[in-house]
Amino acid sequence: MFTNIDHMAICVKDLNNSIYKYETELQLNCSYREIVEEQGVEVAFFETENVNIELIQPLSPNSPVYKYIEKKGEGLHHIAFRVENIDEAITDLKKRQFHLLQDTPRKGSHGSKIFFIHPKQFGMLIEIVEKGEL
Amino acid sequence: MFTNIDHMAICVKDLNNSIYKYETELQLNCSYREIVEEQGVEVAFFETENVNIELIQPLSPNSPVYKYIEKKGEGLHHIAFRVENIDEAITDLKKRQFHLLQDTPRKGSHGSKIFFIHPKQFGMLIEIVEKGEL
Repeated sequence: MFTNIDHMAICVKDLNNSIYKYETELQLNCSYREIVEEQGVEVAFFETENVNIELIQPLSPNSPVYKYIEKKGEGLHHIAFRVENIDEAITDLKKRQFHLLQDTPRKGSHGSKIFFIHPKQFGMLIEIVEKGEL
Repeated sequence: MFTNIDHMAICVKDLNNSIYKYETELQLNCSYREIVEEQGVEVAFFETENVNIELIQPLSPNSPVYKYIEKKGEGLHHIAFRVENIDEAITDLKKRQFHLLQDTPRKGSHGSKIFFIHPKQFGMLIEIVEKGEL
């Protein structure tokens, strides 16, 4: 299951400003942008040859990402492994006693389905993602 | 220059314990381990299909990684972009007024040459790496 890294995510306070810096200074191209209501965030994606970079800006103080930035500052937030079938993944990880943050998949960006493994289990937040049609 | 992500690095307090968890729970294979004296750390690498994961344990309280863990806890520490020629990269980034942590390349793991961009510039630590012969 943990064979393909879909993206790594970086939380930022000001998405517009960060996109500008990533485009002008790192010369990466922002290929996609979306508000993900269910997570209370706006995200932007940059493609590299082998893995995508996601920037995440919280949209309200209720977003867990807002609290994360308050506590730890801007920076690397999670890594996401891609799976073919998210329902099978969630069943398998529950059986193996993983500490999951959600019992059922939630809506991610690009029409994807996602869930998270509790950051305490591996010392960082891990997302599992099944790509959508977008 | 920022086209290929060589690895993402996660700092941990206990390398043996983390390797055990990554191998048994994430079912990733630890393919390489090394003490990098110049950085004051021991590192372990896990390969996935598209990008490597590096675990880093500081070896003394003088290591910047030790201080990072004290301040922010275990977790994602930096991402590393691979370049063909590190001397060209350092010259180019200096010319473009990047805020670099080193003026000349240092020794990384696997016989690589590395330097870092100041975390303040992009809200996270970025490593530039030219692969070695190992």
